[in-house]
Amino acid sequence: MVEDKIILGIDPGTSIMGYGIIAIKSGKVSMLNYGIIQLNKLENHPDKLKRIFERVDGLIASYHPDEMAIEAPFFGKNVQSMLKLGRAQGVCIAASLSRNIPFEEYSPRRIKQAITGKGSASKEQVAGMLQTLLGLKELPKHLDATDGLAVALCHYYSKGIGEHNKSKVKGWEAFVKQNPKRTN
Amino acid sequence: MVEDKIILGIDPGTSIMGYGIIAIKSGKVSMLNYGIIQLNKLENHPDKLKRIFERVDGLIASYHPDEMAIEAPFFGKNVQSMLKLGRAQGVCIAASLSRNIPFEEYSPRRIKQAITGKGSASKEQVAGMLQTLLGLKELPKHLDATDGLAVALCHYYSKGIGEHNKSKVKGWEAFVKQNPKRTN
Repeated sequence: MVEDKIILGIDPGTSIMGYGIIAIKSGKVSMLNYGIIQLNKLENHPDKLKRIFERVDGLIASYHPDEMAIEAPFFGKNVQSMLKLGRAQGVCIAASLSRNIPFEEYSPRRIKQAITGKGSASKEQVAGMLQTLLGLKELPKHLDATDGLAVALCHYYSKGIGEHNKSKVKGWEAFVKQNPKRTN
Repeated sequence: MVEDKIILGIDPGTSIMGYGIIAIKSGKVSMLNYGIIQLNKLENHPDKLKRIFERVDGLIASYHPDEMAIEAPFFGKNVQSMLKLGRAQGVCIAASLSRNIPFEEYSPRRIKQAITGKGSASKEQVAGMLQTLLGLKELPKHLDATDGLAVALCHYYSKGIGEHNKSKVKGWEAFVKQNPKRTN
């Protein structure tokens, strides 16, 4: 029996952030909300971090999620972009910590794998599958908006929190865990 | 006339974090507290981020700083370490944002320059100068503990918040600002 709960999924970025909130009730999944947080019009990095914190904190205050999941790429083009991405992730994580909500992180490949069965799926394939799984009437203009939903759903499929402390993963998941450099 | 205020300085790291709190009263600077937050005994990265958030939040709750300053290296060895450092920085920044405390960041070189007059000063030289400037009776075992004090004092010397929106910096500071790649 799956516990009833609400999951907030976040795809942190420094230009556009995607978020999605899903509810699990009596083993059924439904979408509560999803969208994007636009950061590319803000001039400086501190303002972006402030906006991220305020919006994530606002989502938590509005939807009272039980758990949070974030999409976390482990590799990037250069140290500068990784530092900025790390800060955006850190701010999201702190927003959950400040309200005592446990968080879990998933690599982009792991999320695609969970949603479509294929780690190399395109953004469109992930969005199409989410539309089916969650019964979305239409897809948003910015596909980034579905990235938040994807990580929330991936978290639900992964059955919970604390995986980084466990070694129960099997098969493809075990491979991802044991070979992070090869799978992202 | 310098405004009375309390400044919290943080040197975020993923192994050891240094913090320092100084008070400015009637133009005089005094040290309220300083120390380290040990993270290297925690097993996983999420636990480290949690510890960072709790400790920084605790320092804010105890000392009610008016402003926060963090030491922020812009370059590192590799993308992995920069992502982790970025997360540690992001969590610290979010701890200040969650309590509406403005923050400012300074490069390591800028801090050494502000404290000793020499951007390439050693950790020992910075600690020695802090001992003189703040009348510390003795130096701590971990010199990391003085790094937090150093950034707090650097922030005080830099006269405040919002510099990233201003273009008032002159001389060496202007060079740092205009040539971040050459000075760190």
